[in-house]
Amino acid sequence: MIIIGFDPGTRVCGYGIIQSEKQRILAAGCDIIKLNPKLKLSGKLAELSKALSAVLDDYKPDIAVVETIFYGKNIQSSITLAHARGVILQACALSNIRVFEYSPREVKKAVTGNGNGSKSQVRAMIQKIIGLTAPIESEDASDALSVAYTHFNKMKFGKFNLVEEGYAKET
Amino acid sequence: MIIIGFDPGTRVCGYGIIQSEKQRILAAGCDIIKLNPKLKLSGKLAELSKALSAVLDDYKPDIAVVETIFYGKNIQSSITLAHARGVILQACALSNIRVFEYSPREVKKAVTGNGNGSKSQVRAMIQKIIGLTAPIESEDASDALSVAYTHFNKMKFGKFNLVEEGYAKET
Repeated sequence: MIIIGFDPGTRVCGYGIIQSEKQRILAAGCDIIKLNPKLKLSGKLAELSKALSAVLDDYKPDIAVVETIFYGKNIQSSITLAHARGVILQACALSNIRVFEYSPREVKKAVTGNGNGSKSQVRAMIQKIIGLTAPIESEDASDALSVAYTHFNKMKFGKFNLVEEGYAKET
Repeated sequence: MIIIGFDPGTRVCGYGIIQSEKQRILAAGCDIIKLNPKLKLSGKLAELSKALSAVLDDYKPDIAVVETIFYGKNIQSSITLAHARGVILQACALSNIRVFEYSPREVKKAVTGNGNGSKSQVRAMIQKIIGLTAPIESEDASDALSVAYTHFNKMKFGKFNLVEEGYAKET
């Protein structure tokens, strides 16, 4: 089973991949897609779309995971982010990959055990859990890996079969 | 010159097309892309993406136009809308179509002469301006045609060459 998690963005989009078998992680990694800051939004989204196709083609994930959008003070940036999220969702669905979503709180809880954990705690914990030897340089990449791990964790504890999609809103 | 305007949505996406030559409208029309309401968001976006490819392939527009997102009371629906808008922007950019955006106020002003015109005024006026014999049934379609007309109108009055992209934010 290959799970890909995403941290959408119109500057940088992080992705993290977990390959598992019988509830054990066999391999994991994460990286970022950097978008040309000189492009206009439409150009960035097209660049993202092309890069996503290549990533999905390379890793052939079975499941994709994204965070729900939390809109706080800056609604405009949440709306911009939603454009990138839309491109990710369609790219996954076009590749027949099922998409699941979790709230930022659920991701923090899965990784740190605390729904209010800080970003740096999440980053430190995900490296420890996955057992990566080299530190993850980008926060976007580690966030994406945390999102993928959240789904792996839910499956591991059997909630996937028990509640069948009810535990997370499939989007 | 072929201009396509969009009214993004995750239930229905309207599009309107204006073919012009020497600042005169030669032909115009509009229609909608209906998305399967039973699909999850990712599935709807993939369906939208496929339908858009077909429309862009059929009409080969030179320019695409979308409204900026106005977020009022319902932020959640603006965020959902932004997902569809992201898919539209990337589809246009992947087809090398330049994308322009106008605010809802600019569209209303171009069509009715009044930035605060009502939706029904816009619909009645765009039919009159374009000279369509049959009434446009869908508001999503007439909105999209109004968006395309806004750009045609700006070009007609030469602001395009005078201010070069400054009159509208290219996105």
